[in-house]
Amino acid sequence: MNATAVSRTVQEPIEAGDPRAEPRAFRRCLGQFATGVTVITTAHGDTPVGMAVNSFAAVSLDPPLILWSVRRESRSLPAFLETARFAVNVLSADQVEVSQAFGSGHPERFSLAPWSAGTHSGAPLLDDAVAHLECRLEAVHEGGDHLILVGHVEQYARFDGSPLLFAQGTYAVADDHPAGHDSTTDPGPAEAPATDTDALFTTLLKDAAHRMSTLFDEHRHTIGVNDVTSRVVNRLGAGPCGSEELEHATYLGRRAVEDALAELVEQGHAGRDPHGRYELTASGRRIGQRLRHSARMFTGQQLSGIPEADIAAARRVLLALQPSS
Amino acid sequence: MNATAVSRTVQEPIEAGDPRAEPRAFRRCLGQFATGVTVITTAHGDTPVGMAVNSFAAVSLDPPLILWSVRRESRSLPAFLETARFAVNVLSADQVEVSQAFGSGHPERFSLAPWSAGTHSGAPLLDDAVAHLECRLEAVHEGGDHLILVGHVEQYARFDGSPLLFAQGTYAVADDHPAGHDSTTDPGPAEAPATDTDALFTTLLKDAAHRMSTLFDEHRHTIGVNDVTSRVVNRLGAGPCGSEELEHATYLGRRAVEDALAELVEQGHAGRDPHGRYELTASGRRIGQRLRHSARMFTGQQLSGIPEADIAAARRVLLALQPSS
Repeated sequence: MNATAVSRTVQEPIEAGDPRAEPRAFRRCLGQFATGVTVITTAHGDTPVGMAVNSFAAVSLDPPLILWSVRRESRSLPAFLETARFAVNVLSADQVEVSQAFGSGHPERFSLAPWSAGTHSGAPLLDDAVAHLECRLEAVHEGGDHLILVGHVEQYARFDGSPLLFAQGTYAVADDHPAGHDSTTDPGPAEAPATDTDALFTTLLKDAAHRMSTLFDEHRHTIGVNDVTSRVVNRLGAGPCGSEELEHATYLGRRAVEDALAELVEQGHAGRDPHGRYELTASGRRIGQRLRHSARMFTGQQLSGIPEADIAAARRVLLALQPSS
Repeated sequence: MNATAVSRTVQEPIEAGDPRAEPRAFRRCLGQFATGVTVITTAHGDTPVGMAVNSFAAVSLDPPLILWSVRRESRSLPAFLETARFAVNVLSADQVEVSQAFGSGHPERFSLAPWSAGTHSGAPLLDDAVAHLECRLEAVHEGGDHLILVGHVEQYARFDGSPLLFAQGTYAVADDHPAGHDSTTDPGPAEAPATDTDALFTTLLKDAAHRMSTLFDEHRHTIGVNDVTSRVVNRLGAGPCGSEELEHATYLGRRAVEDALAELVEQGHAGRDPHGRYELTASGRRIGQRLRHSARMFTGQQLSGIPEADIAAARRVLLALQPSS
């Protein structure tokens, strides 16, 4: 059908197959599609109901429709079906804890996040979200172990701020596409496009930081440890830890933490302590040492050839620019 | 219903209302939910068919179901309904041009992106994607001006790489959540958690870069120009430009470019030249000057108090770390 399709060495997948054979691996594959994070709420009588959802999608502009999916066994499902009204709260980058509280069904979730009742839906609208969509339940479709809920948007509100992301099993934030940087922070001089030498410090900083983390990911890949596993190993290196505590310390999603722990235990790199917390075994600690060593090696390689004095000065500048917190 | 809901000054929305009253503003609101970018393909006889889609969502693990939405008027829709087979290609951060080509229905789109036919679906699987999902069409649901297509995943493949993102009208990449940085690139010393002074250079760099761009966004906000408009004004400052060329130069989505141009024209900041290209008017050029000036002011403010010699040294280090390209 296409010349380019014929003579090529095809890139090898990390994992592939029949989704039914390896549900965990299939879920990791679905995690390659990055999403925002929403908390979808309704008011069931006097009880606020809400859950963290990332299966949200826009559907139609006219009529204004959106959709999301909910597990059939979800305890909150009846409330959404009975009220037939709900609000989608699109979370901001500052709301990881809110996402975690609603994701784990934390009993205090509605006091952790200030909110007010929507005028159209009566559903809780969370403060500090980047968007609110008040919806009327328009249709419900079969979706295997989930139901697909289609909502008609009656009222929308967009707020300032950056969205929270969930990608490849971890919470994240959006960064300008590196290839587009100079069109964003750096308008360049009036006369000519920016050159390396007159580029703004902010732009140099951004491009250098992006390149370093890209190279670091590739580097870590060469020692055969993925980002998720390395975060879990790094945290466990500091001492025994429960899975929920790990979630909070690593900014990983619950499923990613569970999968990583299961694999580490299977491979004999981690176990449980007398209190049921996870801890590294001798081989797990060796992985941690290898990660620390390789991170330092990597930094050294990147900076090699740059005068010590310049590096020391650059450290002073970067320290002066750190978040004060 | 909740004490915290009562006595609070509620954050003011940038835009809010009835979605039917202002479709453009409603679309901007929907854009607050970040998504990955997919190209969904099928093989219609000998003809490869494909379109860029970001309304993809995971639905169910068992059975393995996913969904996406397609405009009723899409010329490709009949092919997807007739073949009842399709492949979802989740694009990597390096595939902005692929997304743009399939988004604009570029005639050469299938030669721009090397691909091979999927063994289960026969649908084109694009090289360099981070995931392939070969699907059987399971159900089609009404979705206003779109149709909702539910697919049963028969084969999945996950590849190494970072996903391409689309958020707030622009292409983007995922960055580690700033609050989680130290759990990612920097495992810290074996003995104790990392302190500012022994933190890895890579971590200092990342945190400084993130803080600077966050502060810059807030700063730009204070002069009343959003990121999308500033990118368009910056590009037009370099000379007249067509809307497609603008899309490629700014890494903005087509809708965001169209909306920004429409607003600039309405407000008298831009017009068309004899060749139909967009160009800034006198007032538009003044906005560009204000953006350049404020970007330089901002950088100056951030670096104020830091010795000139240190800044010069830091610039040398950052230049040494720039992408060689």
